Amino acid sequence: MAQKELGKQSVKFKNPPFIVGAASIVGEKEGNGPYGRYFDQIITDPMAGMKTWEEAEEHFQEMAARMAIRKSSLKESDIRYLVAGDLLGQLIASSFGLMNLDIPIFGVYGACSTMGESLAIGSMLVDGGFADHVVALTSSHFASAEKQFRFPLGYGNQRPKAATWTVTGSGAVVISSVRAGKNVRVRGVTTGKIVDYGIKDSMNMGACMAPAAADVIGQSFADFGMGPGEYDRIITGDLGKVGKDIVIDILKAKGYDISANYMDCGIEIYEEDQNVQAGGSGCGCSAVMLTGYILKKLEEGSWKKVLFVPTGALLSPVSFNEGKSVPGIAHAVILERDAG
Amino acid sequence: MAQKELGKQSVKFKNPPFIVGAASIVGEKEGNGPYGRYFDQIITDPMAGMKTWEEAEEHFQEMAARMAIRKSSLKESDIRYLVAGDLLGQLIASSFGLMNLDIPIFGVYGACSTMGESLAIGSMLVDGGFADHVVALTSSHFASAEKQFRFPLGYGNQRPKAATWTVTGSGAVVISSVRAGKNVRVRGVTTGKIVDYGIKDSMNMGACMAPAAADVIGQSFADFGMGPGEYDRIITGDLGKVGKDIVIDILKAKGYDISANYMDCGIEIYEEDQNVQAGGSGCGCSAVMLTGYILKKLEEGSWKKVLFVPTGALLSPVSFNEGKSVPGIAHAVILERDAG
Repeated sequence: MAQKELGKQSVKFKNPPFIVGAASIVGEKEGNGPYGRYFDQIITDPMAGMKTWEEAEEHFQEMAARMAIRKSSLKESDIRYLVAGDLLGQLIASSFGLMNLDIPIFGVYGACSTMGESLAIGSMLVDGGFADHVVALTSSHFASAEKQFRFPLGYGNQRPKAATWTVTGSGAVVISSVRAGKNVRVRGVTTGKIVDYGIKDSMNMGACMAPAAADVIGQSFADFGMGPGEYDRIITGDLGKVGKDIVIDILKAKGYDISANYMDCGIEIYEEDQNVQAGGSGCGCSAVMLTGYILKKLEEGSWKKVLFVPTGALLSPVSFNEGKSVPGIAHAVILERDAG
Repeated sequence: MAQKELGKQSVKFKNPPFIVGAASIVGEKEGNGPYGRYFDQIITDPMAGMKTWEEAEEHFQEMAARMAIRKSSLKESDIRYLVAGDLLGQLIASSFGLMNLDIPIFGVYGACSTMGESLAIGSMLVDGGFADHVVALTSSHFASAEKQFRFPLGYGNQRPKAATWTVTGSGAVVISSVRAGKNVRVRGVTTGKIVDYGIKDSMNMGACMAPAAADVIGQSFADFGMGPGEYDRIITGDLGKVGKDIVIDILKAKGYDISANYMDCGIEIYEEDQNVQAGGSGCGCSAVMLTGYILKKLEEGSWKKVLFVPTGALLSPVSFNEGKSVPGIAHAVILERDAG
């Protein structure tokens, strides 16, 4: 067994990397939600001054990356790798958005679990001695995602109760081998498998993703020998109200009760009256909640340890139209306060 | 500087991982080409017995992964991570194709440079002590790619001279911390940046990718202090005939003459009379040439050291239709024979 392998699917870092910078850029609806005051910047124009929604999303990623680097007091030339992805086909928000940074890049895709994947890979690159500083980031945009996956916005289709609203926003973190006065470390990660319960409803992605979330959370508990009680929060990405109940139920059947300290970024990010049905979703959802809120709670000491579990639904317009199911994936990241 | 960082963009492995298994599965046209006898399996039915082209491509990936693992004498449960991607939106060939393997997965996207990206990340996971065995793989399929990026096949559009033909095939390698009787090692990698010369012609991807290839090859020479003469071959992924001349010219201007030992998988994989214009392309192109031919030349000792440089064109149907350019990316991997 390799030196850092732990249990079936986890790794424990020898020198847990620090998160030394973070940035959250959101749209107007997210800014009007209950966490609006936590985000670094609210861009009220859905086009962000650009010509297309895709360019707007690219702009969000570029802004988030540059701001996270600036907040870490590093220069762009100090960053060894970008680990980035988004929901759009062929990751165009990342490719076009991050081109001008002139930094070597690994494109990653885990649907809305992408922040978990980029954090995991970025942390391994740092702990493995391949880089001192890595930026991990992702984004989503309501309009570019609807255009990619569902109906033309102008069509004004009805949204069922189980539907979620794609968050417009980008979150970026700088992962570093040196403390630089910061105190949140990535202790370890549990990498998810693809889990398919055969659900075919792209308007009920919470149900598609919940089994994968439960699978990786349960595996993380087993691998690290740490149950729900040892975390201040267990935080999924964007299961929404439907997925929340399912993940709690599946984990209960596995012998873990997470209901007391469970939260879901998708449920949190909007108010009940913001007309978002089951909650928020998209890569940007967990990314901006991490960079805007979760890291701050850890930094200030309100929380000591968090299991952060971005959740993804693996579908494409092609696979959906060909009648395929929507499998899920989720990656778990242990974030811990270490006052040094 | 982290312990394995080398120069501006490269890493040098402390314990260079071994490639202990490889598999190449191709379609009929590739089987009829000059390298047909090197590939492990030729599937003459473009649907591979499935219902859609996408399912066929998924099947290619699953077969390649399972065969590579079998050839490495490992069990699927020995594999710690899959690092996989493809050209299709939201990586459906990988997600659906690899679901049944029940192995933790990192989805990656670097367009046709994906084999370079998955080799780089997979090797870092092994050298970093996070895994003993990783499978890196990718695929492409002529028909699913044409449907995704260009014209409906039934439309029978003319193909300009600069166009390339997407390879139908999947290549997979098992990257391992232990020799297991094998002799090809991954010595180091140079990770590419996105390079955009502003070219907008998706029918001339060689020109789009060549600047990125030249950039990463030149940087690799500089970082490792090894010029073209130290490699038996410098092998790009799918620049084709147009891109080939450009990459040689740009590198000449940087002071490196690679013309004597340069080859391009896209030029090699088909015969002149196979009606493929500038050559082959697609993630599968460099992946099957690596697993079918290049690794064998290294294993048998005909070659000692190779710089393997898969090349990618970053476009999507959306970005292309919105009039954006086609930026390029490439990743360089040093493969070396080490008889032990």
